[in-house]
Amino acid sequence: MNRLDGTKERLLEAARRLFADKGFDGASVRAITRRARANLGAITYHFGSKEALYTTVLEQLFRELRERVAAAVAAPAAAGDRLAAIIRAFFAFFADHPEAPRLIVHRLAAGEPPSPVVIEHFRPVVDAIRSTVRDGQARGELRAVEPLLAAFTLISQTVWFAVARRMIATVSGVPLDRPEQAAAVERHITDVVQRALAPRGRAP
Amino acid sequence: MNRLDGTKERLLEAARRLFADKGFDGASVRAITRRARANLGAITYHFGSKEALYTTVLEQLFRELRERVAAAVAAPAAAGDRLAAIIRAFFAFFADHPEAPRLIVHRLAAGEPPSPVVIEHFRPVVDAIRSTVRDGQARGELRAVEPLLAAFTLISQTVWFAVARRMIATVSGVPLDRPEQAAAVERHITDVVQRALAPRGRAP
Repeated sequence: MNRLDGTKERLLEAARRLFADKGFDGASVRAITRRARANLGAITYHFGSKEALYTTVLEQLFRELRERVAAAVAAPAAAGDRLAAIIRAFFAFFADHPEAPRLIVHRLAAGEPPSPVVIEHFRPVVDAIRSTVRDGQARGELRAVEPLLAAFTLISQTVWFAVARRMIATVSGVPLDRPEQAAAVERHITDVVQRALAPRGRAP
Repeated sequence: MNRLDGTKERLLEAARRLFADKGFDGASVRAITRRARANLGAITYHFGSKEALYTTVLEQLFRELRERVAAAVAAPAAAGDRLAAIIRAFFAFFADHPEAPRLIVHRLAAGEPPSPVVIEHFRPVVDAIRSTVRDGQARGELRAVEPLLAAFTLISQTVWFAVARRMIATVSGVPLDRPEQAAAVERHITDVVQRALAPRGRAP
């Protein structure tokens, strides 16, 4: 990695962190470049604009999620096991990128539609879950549930846990925000999704 | 209602809307009083401070949710039906208060713990769900699932739908953001929660 690449990587890392902490508007060019130990013009030089830097941050993150989910569904396995692998991919992604949930939430808070680059990478994630459900239904492994609603049950629990686990811990008094609790919640969500989709008389 | 009460109500309504749109920091005293057609000193006069106005907004909203959920669990019914009534209470609350999800999300985006008044009213909501699950388990109507995780499955899907339905519609291409779609999603979440908790061999 040459010196300029080093600056670019540091800018991406600083931007990921500051956009997550403060949102797009709250994270200033000055704060990002200072955190990256770069000069004030470095964002323009490497990315063209703050908007383009933001898009690159989202692009990298959601491409990675998309690739992890694609790998999870590619393995030949029963539909229930593939759904478990997708949930595992989401948990691994959020464990490696604790800033990702807050990047999503800032956009929701602003009342804006998701950035086009997020739609571009998240749509195949939703489609992969819908296809897995439809395949499982065609093979008689899963009962008839609208595949989009099945995907909603998987994603809503997984994403809400990533987004709100500290709040849940505060309200409930149970320390679900501790890293070692994530495995128990992952098992629970997997169990709920599999039971919700199990054919009659074949609850796991 | 005398003239001063009218101003107070208008301030609460304007504050609920602007705190939802822009968050606590983004909603200025000037913008709130202008929207309420009140003078600049009206917030101090009626509430003492912008912080106290914000607390009152959250207090009113989350007290109402707490009361709706308390009424839902009070009816004598099987545990599965009481869980359905709780989900119905959440959907009715969010239908009547479309600004409520964004008030929650702004706080999450700021990375701050929930306001004490939110904890005070939301904790009994979580406890009501946990008790309903424990009662149902004691009567053999529900299988053994950690009651907090059962509450999580109910709340996460319900709240995430309220928070992200526009985003889900954009990503999926299915207009889940239309009001008439809410009933289908409510039925789906109820079905998922009841199946997740059904004793072996008694899936609904």
